Amino acid sequence: MSEFRRDPLSGRWVIVAPERSARPTDFPVERRYGVGGFCPFCEGNEDKTPPEIFSIRKDGTAPNGPGWRVRVVPNRFPALQMEDSLARQGDGLCRRMNGLGAHEVIIESPRHVLSLCELDCAGVKEVFLTYRGRLRGLREDPRLAYGMIFKNVGAAAGATVEHSHSQLIATPVVPAMVRTELRNARKHHEAHGACLLCDILSAELAAGVRVVARGDHFVALAPFAARFPFETWVLPKAHVPHFEEHPAEALDDLAATLCGVLRRLDAALGSPAYNYLIHTSPFGRRFDAYYHWHIEIIPCVTRVAGFEWGTGVYINPVLPESAAAFLTEIRV
Amino acid sequence: MSEFRRDPLSGRWVIVAPERSARPTDFPVERRYGVGGFCPFCEGNEDKTPPEIFSIRKDGTAPNGPGWRVRVVPNRFPALQMEDSLARQGDGLCRRMNGLGAHEVIIESPRHVLSLCELDCAGVKEVFLTYRGRLRGLREDPRLAYGMIFKNVGAAAGATVEHSHSQLIATPVVPAMVRTELRNARKHHEAHGACLLCDILSAELAAGVRVVARGDHFVALAPFAARFPFETWVLPKAHVPHFEEHPAEALDDLAATLCGVLRRLDAALGSPAYNYLIHTSPFGRRFDAYYHWHIEIIPCVTRVAGFEWGTGVYINPVLPESAAAFLTEIRV
Repeated sequence: MSEFRRDPLSGRWVIVAPERSARPTDFPVERRYGVGGFCPFCEGNEDKTPPEIFSIRKDGTAPNGPGWRVRVVPNRFPALQMEDSLARQGDGLCRRMNGLGAHEVIIESPRHVLSLCELDCAGVKEVFLTYRGRLRGLREDPRLAYGMIFKNVGAAAGATVEHSHSQLIATPVVPAMVRTELRNARKHHEAHGACLLCDILSAELAAGVRVVARGDHFVALAPFAARFPFETWVLPKAHVPHFEEHPAEALDDLAATLCGVLRRLDAALGSPAYNYLIHTSPFGRRFDAYYHWHIEIIPCVTRVAGFEWGTGVYINPVLPESAAAFLTEIRV
Repeated sequence: MSEFRRDPLSGRWVIVAPERSARPTDFPVERRYGVGGFCPFCEGNEDKTPPEIFSIRKDGTAPNGPGWRVRVVPNRFPALQMEDSLARQGDGLCRRMNGLGAHEVIIESPRHVLSLCELDCAGVKEVFLTYRGRLRGLREDPRLAYGMIFKNVGAAAGATVEHSHSQLIATPVVPAMVRTELRNARKHHEAHGACLLCDILSAELAAGVRVVARGDHFVALAPFAARFPFETWVLPKAHVPHFEEHPAEALDDLAATLCGVLRRLDAALGSPAYNYLIHTSPFGRRFDAYYHWHIEIIPCVTRVAGFEWGTGVYINPVLPESAAAFLTEIRV
């Protein structure tokens, strides 16, 4: 039998409608494949990208040449650009603003690796330190309100380049979905005097049935009202509102926890295309008491269909408890 | 240059970021294909579906046998079922309700056609009359609040059966996305004393730049803040809040307008997978002054990626004005 479940963070209702089985092999997973060919993100091809904004590189090497380990460049086809200032136009029916913002690409390795998990722990940590550094840089710009870091892996997840990379889009307004989470977190804080994410985490650790992995500093879990089969979130145990302020010494554990989940998903679903995204607090301090950053990982297992487009209600054919049990059993 | 645009109905902001060209052939469209094989929806295979709820059939033929033109059956793997009554459970962190509702499949032809547009106008009209009939039937059940009709065509759009069909899911609560539209429509009505959709329609007809087709009773347009390339809406010119109350004599024009758009999309994009969905008023009369039913057609051109999942903000690489101009020029 199916049930409606409400995600306390987004307020989204989903329909969990488990079909006869929850074996991952029952789903038409969208796999990722390496297709090869010329790669503008490989070491030696630095002139094929716009000039770098930031890099972690060997001492003595020059920007836009070899010697880097992580490299950040502007997106060649940016969704947003750092134009003068935000200009709002139009009336109630046709409101618009110019496309002010930043759109950067974080190239995670000079080698042509297809997955973040092919890097060693130190390499993954340098990717997180780069996320941190870019968010710290962009939050200094008073025109920007929010920085969204995300990763598309595989064509089915929206990737056009296979070389392992992430993206950062910084926007002049806080995006709707984040605003909704902040509103729900504020209501929870008003009612209970505690951070909603801290409370979700301790309830999940106590219940145990949706926990996928427990690290020293991070926990991975199947959210109670997951939109998608095998959707998995990674949350810090400590109340840290801003990703860019997470202490560096905990990022080894983040690398181990996140890559552990990605490896389990690869094993369970056969290297699916996937997205992950970081929900963090907006720039500034307004939300620090009641919001707490986290990562949402979405493997491409089911397709969004007419019902979801029309209602905003997702139908998830896998019980989150079954997904967690399945992923937990995998040895990686 | 890109811009942010706000959809006045949903309140959604999108980023319209036109790339070098808006030729449909530049996009990695997800095409639909016929794969053949045994089809449980074809005439003669009536025993391969659950017993029919409704049909339009030749006089003298019996239910669940041949002789029908449109046939409605329960979904074999229903997302929701008509259990006793709605039971809410749980606290703030884990709220749930039992999966009460209806999930029906509308089989649009006894022949193995892959597209609604392969039917003649009378056949398409009978499909709409069936939608109307089922919504009228379900709204009599006091446990149900809303009926969402939608169509998935092609695997990339979430279809698992290729024989032309639609689905209806009726829910015990009004879905979030519809509630948001109703709220925005109510605010507009409070401020302007008019239906938001009537006002959008007259503004679009006056501007003309996003109009795709004008029928006697219906208009097709590219919405100002389309989420997806070539997204197209079909709206009645008259203020009709409920699809199920639309006068039958206007449904020939709906068949012509909708199939005209679908044929243009097929010609422009090479028979893409697509979804359409009907946004109509909730059962009851509460919203009748300010809301007005319409159809949203979403061809599968781009993939939803991490940024969209994290922000709710869609990046659309095709200007709606360019899409409308392109579709308008196609002769069908």
